[in-house]
Amino acid sequence: MKATILNAPGDIRLEDVPDPRIAKPTDALVRVTAACVCGSDLWPYRGINPVTEPTRIGHEFVGIVEEVGSDVRSVRPGDFVIAPFMYSDNTCPHCRVGIQSRCDHGGFWGGPDRDGIMADGGQGEYVRVPLADGTLVSTREVPDEDLVPSLLSLSDVMGTGWHAAVAAQVQEGDTVVVVGDGAVGLSGVLAAARMGAERIIAMSRHESRQRIAREFGATDVVEVRGDDAVAAVKELTDGVGADAVLECVGTNESMSTAIAAARPGAIVGYVGVPHGIEYPVRDMFARNVGIAGGIAPARQYLPQLRDDVLSGAINPGLVFDLEVPLTEVAEAYAAMDERRAIKSLIRP
Amino acid sequence: MKATILNAPGDIRLEDVPDPRIAKPTDALVRVTAACVCGSDLWPYRGINPVTEPTRIGHEFVGIVEEVGSDVRSVRPGDFVIAPFMYSDNTCPHCRVGIQSRCDHGGFWGGPDRDGIMADGGQGEYVRVPLADGTLVSTREVPDEDLVPSLLSLSDVMGTGWHAAVAAQVQEGDTVVVVGDGAVGLSGVLAAARMGAERIIAMSRHESRQRIAREFGATDVVEVRGDDAVAAVKELTDGVGADAVLECVGTNESMSTAIAAARPGAIVGYVGVPHGIEYPVRDMFARNVGIAGGIAPARQYLPQLRDDVLSGAINPGLVFDLEVPLTEVAEAYAAMDERRAIKSLIRP
Repeated sequence: MKATILNAPGDIRLEDVPDPRIAKPTDALVRVTAACVCGSDLWPYRGINPVTEPTRIGHEFVGIVEEVGSDVRSVRPGDFVIAPFMYSDNTCPHCRVGIQSRCDHGGFWGGPDRDGIMADGGQGEYVRVPLADGTLVSTREVPDEDLVPSLLSLSDVMGTGWHAAVAAQVQEGDTVVVVGDGAVGLSGVLAAARMGAERIIAMSRHESRQRIAREFGATDVVEVRGDDAVAAVKELTDGVGADAVLECVGTNESMSTAIAAARPGAIVGYVGVPHGIEYPVRDMFARNVGIAGGIAPARQYLPQLRDDVLSGAINPGLVFDLEVPLTEVAEAYAAMDERRAIKSLIRP
Repeated sequence: MKATILNAPGDIRLEDVPDPRIAKPTDALVRVTAACVCGSDLWPYRGINPVTEPTRIGHEFVGIVEEVGSDVRSVRPGDFVIAPFMYSDNTCPHCRVGIQSRCDHGGFWGGPDRDGIMADGGQGEYVRVPLADGTLVSTREVPDEDLVPSLLSLSDVMGTGWHAAVAAQVQEGDTVVVVGDGAVGLSGVLAAARMGAERIIAMSRHESRQRIAREFGATDVVEVRGDDAVAAVKELTDGVGADAVLECVGTNESMSTAIAAARPGAIVGYVGVPHGIEYPVRDMFARNVGIAGGIAPARQYLPQLRDDVLSGAINPGLVFDLEVPLTEVAEAYAAMDERRAIKSLIRP
């Protein structure tokens, strides 16, 4: 089959790889019908994370089940399924409390599983899915084509934005600040709106992203950064700060802004992978500002968010502003790298 | 009147100071009937915090209202009152969400208030209480003498231990780890027990403190520190870690232990004033371990904890293992400094 390989920074290609097959009774084989590129795929693409050898890539996909192992009970051939960005057994102690991203037997797509058998990357024609019962979530029927982008977004960005809002303990009526206007930040805006936030302050300097943020429920947009952004939030909140803050970037500047924008007693829910963060320890203590979050357990939220998409309550697929065939995967990366696209959808 | 003055590190004395009087319509004048020494009083006593001039000290006291200003409505002369370790208006935006420790008009005892008028320290005969309605909590009747230590503990240590448990989101049935066996840590054990924790693992190397921890509800005691303590918690929890962790020390070692002992998805509720802490940023992200807490809003919890003491549901006064008259305040400090006492009660 054809699958995407990152050979070196900037060198992304569709290549021939071995056809996957059912290797264990708990496996499923999925034919990918839509996949996408994640902001985190850009780190090795840009060489920020080292690329030491050609590697399979892609961790967000939906598709049709082709075949299942003998132990698989929850999905069957023909089902439309959504895969979260990590696989998990959904039965270990961590999964049972909803932290499937720390599953005792789980892992990431695009490399060997714990038995050394390839769990294919999502940016290809097929994927062998380990632990299919604990990983995949199906829709009852094959969904309308126009719902596919939104369902695909639940693989990662929408589940991750949702996790930020859960971690920040967004409550009905809250004033929420969202730091970051990438697909995750925008999804965070949508999550906060769905949870009943009354006021949502999105930080964004890009008009196209501001437009989506407003469609998702942002009531205010702050275009400045750093201390100016904090001052703007204070101005908008009578000097108090935000009831909850979603940090969806991961840099020291964005985290500092997030913490400073939080009112005393608030929690910063963070999902941006931390790069060079130094927490303002004394300020957090003095103001009772907490931090919670981490690698999102997308699997936990999938059933609920799937239902929300199918009912039309949320439309997170709006974050996709480019669609290309799998043969043009290089363009999907280049467009995001050059910020010509917020998020690229790929059709095998 | 007589009040305690810290003249220099190690030099603590009872001295004559001006008699306080009602200075504002929102003031109350309280005759102190019991006060105590806080672990944090030991920082300047030990010279860890600099002492640049003689200073009033003490922030935990109970007593009888002698006189009130014309605007005071909630207490009247003759009332027995408990003062939290900071005064607050209880009406500003931060107070209204329960973070009275960040009150827009509040402050600490033992120094001038925002108008430059002395808010006396608690370790003296009388205290002028600013913002009396927002600060003091009274009992309906003057309580039995044997309840006074427990009511006094609500000024700080019990409210602070409770805050750690609230911040850590202790739930019924949880396994909770408490790092720190000082009066706050012991109070944290009691708080976790009161909240319904099923298993409470106290970290303590001192037999007398272990005994109180067990009286307060600890089911297990871990006597080792650092990596060994984390290993012991893992051993006790089938390798999973604790559902909630209370950090009641504030050093880098204790915080590292607390974070490492937390299961994925857990929150470390921390109330130890941070000294030299560097958070393990990547590990917290990978395991979704959050931190929340800070300077405890003791005032928030006072009414509820007062009722719990009066009903006999909790007996936090057990943390006092030394009682001296105010004239022997120096011994109250020395005993705690030399770890001969967990916490010293002072009777004016």
